[in-house]
Amino acid sequence: MKLGSLKRGRDGALVVISRDLLRKVEVTDIAPTLQAALDDWATVSVRLKGVYEALNQGYIDSEPLCLKELDAPLPRAYQWVDGSAYLNHSRLMRQARNAELPPSFYSDPLIYQGGSDHFIAGQSDISLPTDRWGADFEAEIAVITDDIPLGATEQQAADAIRLLVLVNDVSLRNLIPAELAKGFGFYQGKPASALSPVCVTPDELGDSWQDSKLSLPLQIYYNEQLFGCPDAGQDMHFSFARLLNHMARTRAVGAGTLVGSGTVSNQQSAPYLPEDGGLGFSCIAEARMVEMIEYGRPSTPFMRFGDRIRIEMNDTEGQSLFGAIDQTLQPSQ
Amino acid sequence: MKLGSLKRGRDGALVVISRDLLRKVEVTDIAPTLQAALDDWATVSVRLKGVYEALNQGYIDSEPLCLKELDAPLPRAYQWVDGSAYLNHSRLMRQARNAELPPSFYSDPLIYQGGSDHFIAGQSDISLPTDRWGADFEAEIAVITDDIPLGATEQQAADAIRLLVLVNDVSLRNLIPAELAKGFGFYQGKPASALSPVCVTPDELGDSWQDSKLSLPLQIYYNEQLFGCPDAGQDMHFSFARLLNHMARTRAVGAGTLVGSGTVSNQQSAPYLPEDGGLGFSCIAEARMVEMIEYGRPSTPFMRFGDRIRIEMNDTEGQSLFGAIDQTLQPSQ
Repeated sequence: MKLGSLKRGRDGALVVISRDLLRKVEVTDIAPTLQAALDDWATVSVRLKGVYEALNQGYIDSEPLCLKELDAPLPRAYQWVDGSAYLNHSRLMRQARNAELPPSFYSDPLIYQGGSDHFIAGQSDISLPTDRWGADFEAEIAVITDDIPLGATEQQAADAIRLLVLVNDVSLRNLIPAELAKGFGFYQGKPASALSPVCVTPDELGDSWQDSKLSLPLQIYYNEQLFGCPDAGQDMHFSFARLLNHMARTRAVGAGTLVGSGTVSNQQSAPYLPEDGGLGFSCIAEARMVEMIEYGRPSTPFMRFGDRIRIEMNDTEGQSLFGAIDQTLQPSQ
Repeated sequence: MKLGSLKRGRDGALVVISRDLLRKVEVTDIAPTLQAALDDWATVSVRLKGVYEALNQGYIDSEPLCLKELDAPLPRAYQWVDGSAYLNHSRLMRQARNAELPPSFYSDPLIYQGGSDHFIAGQSDISLPTDRWGADFEAEIAVITDDIPLGATEQQAADAIRLLVLVNDVSLRNLIPAELAKGFGFYQGKPASALSPVCVTPDELGDSWQDSKLSLPLQIYYNEQLFGCPDAGQDMHFSFARLLNHMARTRAVGAGTLVGSGTVSNQQSAPYLPEDGGLGFSCIAEARMVEMIEYGRPSTPFMRFGDRIRIEMNDTEGQSLFGAIDQTLQPSQ
């Protein structure tokens, strides 16, 4: 099943979306918002699924869908936690400064609590007062969960994954070092993230969804050039179920929680660039780290006003699963 | 005006509460939940205020209030950010390990993004699977805000403060060092916090609310003994307006955001204990730090199952402003 939220009010208006992303049916009579659906998933999802099947078979009145009319599936949420499940990303970030990954990083997931009071619509721009903060994109997969009890096992956590979505975790690289040095994590360095226009249930992913990992390549275009095409199932050291199990150790996890995979990053050696047959990168920072390691200095600049980032994922038949995140960095106001 | 949320569903049912905390009027016809009221504050607050005045004057049908029937005013919220505005707390925590406060801490607020998917009701217990994690309380003041635009000034931020509430920011001291060493802030070390049963508008505080600081003493009772009585207006180095201005530097702040002051802590010298005429402490960790500095080793243990924490604040006439946070640490399940 594919779901989205029309731009309406603070929380959007719930729509069921056809598998080909071309048609929609407003279902606010079943649940006014996606959060309301998640709050009562067992009951509501059965009815939504009925609409989804009728929509795909053309048995129900529907309207054409323009992805730009969709807000983030959850325009605001009660929790956003981002993981660092692709250790290759963490390893690269440290290698550039001659530091090793601590052994505990292989067994103990690294996560941070992010801001969830606003998610940017997938096809709305990123607005910042300046482009001198080192704005970067990070292409990620995220899951949206049901309630998960305190102390949940990995299996319980896996069973509570209701939806998947793409994320552009916007990062301000020039602000992050001073902020992390203060010791309490990110705040100013992580402005609002963007979500893909559409979110999908795991059964939509077929065999590509295995053991709480999504094994499909991302397509990341930066200023219309293919910048990265890593496989999100490869090198994901901690599955979503493991991340959730880690989160539930000391507290319950509420319905509608989003958990990100962290920047998708596959192990590779030269050639790195997609134009040379490499897998490229899911964020500029990682490209800069490889440039540092290979050439002694970074050469790809961070985003400036007017730069455009597009993040998409197709299923095995070439159909866009989530619709594209497609954003340009713009000055605020 | 004083507001609360009856325990009903995930978000509670909005009630207006009399100044003396003895009566309530359900106002779900005006706004079903406190979040709904905050989403449309300009319109809704006028109607709520009318009910509040009629209630205090006995001109409206009301029902008796038992504080135990109240959930957290926001049982879940879109954002919880905790500050460290009382530098004395940060200084003490470092002094015990012979470290100085970095000079930047005096000009650049330290905040962290906390979990907001669940707040514990003020008079519900803290449930944990073990009492070996070093459970501690932290008595704090928090504000609840309206929307604040990106780049807001301190004055704009001050004008967007809608409500105040007490917080018990539950902390797991034995888990925090390893977690902070990973570099991305708190997660497992900060399970759900508790909010006082009642939240109040700033005009309820009279002259005690000045320059976005609340100058009244807290009363913190631990196992029925007065443990701390610091003044929340004293030594608050960063006002709530300054904390919000810091938060709004790179992103807008959504309506219903809670921002905590951090552990309230006044500068003092011996005698420290309330029984000796001192101000005591707002958390066990700080008591242990002073014990370490004075006697070479900490002696007050962290919370064990059965330990009880009560946090309250009275107005200048001795009337409880927010109702007491009153919780016992209990084994989960």
